Amino acid sequence: MILAKVIGTVWATRKDEKLVGTKLQIVRPVDLEYADKEGFFVAVDVVGAGVGEIVLVCQGSSARQTSTTENRAVDATIMAIVDKLDVAI
Amino acid sequence: MILAKVIGTVWATRKDEKLVGTKLQIVRPVDLEYADKEGFFVAVDVVGAGVGEIVLVCQGSSARQTSTTENRAVDATIMAIVDKLDVAI
Amino acid sequence: MILAKVIGTVWATRKDEKLVGTKLQIVRPVDLEYADKEGFFVAVDVVGAGVGEIVLVCQGSSARQTSTTENRAVDATIMAIVDKLDVAI
Amino acid sequence: MILAKVIGTVWATRKDEKLVGTKLQIVRPVDLEYADKEGFFVAVDVVGAGVGEIVLVCQGSSARQTSTTENRAVDATIMAIVDKLDVAI
Amino acid sequence: MILAKVIGTVWATRKDEKLVGTKLQIVRPVDLEYADKEGFFVAVDVVGAGVGEIVLVCQGSSARQTSTTENRAVDATIMAIVDKLDVAI
Repeated sequence: MILAKVIGTVWATRKDEKLVGTKLQIVRPVDLEYADKEGFFVAVDVVGAGVGEIVLVCQGSSARQTSTTENRAVDATIMAIVDKLDVAI
Repeated sequence: MILAKVIGTVWATRKDEKLVGTKLQIVRPVDLEYADKEGFFVAVDVVGAGVGEIVLVCQGSSARQTSTTENRAVDATIMAIVDKLDVAI
Repeated sequence: MILAKVIGTVWATRKDEKLVGTKLQIVRPVDLEYADKEGFFVAVDVVGAGVGEIVLVCQGSSARQTSTTENRAVDATIMAIVDKLDVAI
Repeated sequence: MILAKVIGTVWATRKDEKLVGTKLQIVRPVDLEYADKEGFFVAVDVVGAGVGEIVLVCQGSSARQTSTTENRAVDATIMAIVDKLDVAI
Repeated sequence: MILAKVIGTVWATRKDEKLVGTKLQIVRPVDLEYADKEGFFVAVDVVGAGVGEIVLVCQGSSARQTSTTENRAVDATIMAIVDKLDVAI
């Protein structure tokens, strides 16, 4: 999973029928100090993450292993909201 | 999912039999202002996206989770047409 | 899927038993003018593509969604031979 | 699989229900001399790896092929603790 | 699949129970003249490849499509030993 920050939302009324009702969030990878890294992508939110929150994003087929994303054309899912990191080294 | 722009079409009469009838679109990744990024790849369109439209592309095994792409040799699918982005940060 | 050119063949007599009979082609990614890009990889051909032809290559689990590659240790498949590209933008 | 070092832990109380009880470790890829490489990501630990240990991380759908991660939204799993490397070339 | 050279072995006594008995080889990608490229990763060997041999490595879920790696947390498998390459272009 990668560490990312929710930075916005995608609006898309024309989409595959199985995606109706999913929330499409824009996420940007961040480093261990939560500073922005390069790039962004779009993930389905299944934990109610708001803009600005630090989250974990699961990618690939594993992104479909939640009740919200099962059997859907989703390759990235926000599956946890980060409380804090303990970095020891 | 990644944000991309439809820039053209691939014509291929000789293809795996299960791909007959699929529409193969050329897509180029774009940034949050819809400006072109590097590179391009080919995706099957399942939402009727035209050239120039901004779309979301789903990759990997999740690309097969639509009625058009199910059980087919497809690793990228255009599964939504973007209306607008709300970028808050 | 990515656009590539067939540039050669791999000979391998010692291989996983389920791969016997598959044709292992070397492919190099190309740009929209069919000029070589960096790198190369190996893909199983299921459409009879010859050396020099421009093809589409499907990667990941979707590479197994043809009758030739089903249930085999194959992560890249040539599943179409390109006739032409229409690039509009 | 890639070689990595466990460098910390992620705390996340709000997460997909199937992830409750999993241990989310932060790992950093290392080279053959165990020196840090760029970047980091988060993996579920199934072998009791502690901070500072050198481990193997399995990614993608294969990350779900353990009793701890089965059917869960997990795309990276620590599935071995490295004792030593024999590098001959 | 990618072309690589076997450069060593990983020893790991503490690992997921389904990985007991698998041979974990370190592989380094090579170019068409078998010269070393950057980086390395770890793959399970299912064809008896020795150190120094040039092999094909299959990645992702397809790495599990051999009798040795089926249902195991393995994301890269050495599934062929290369005899020679015919590069025509």
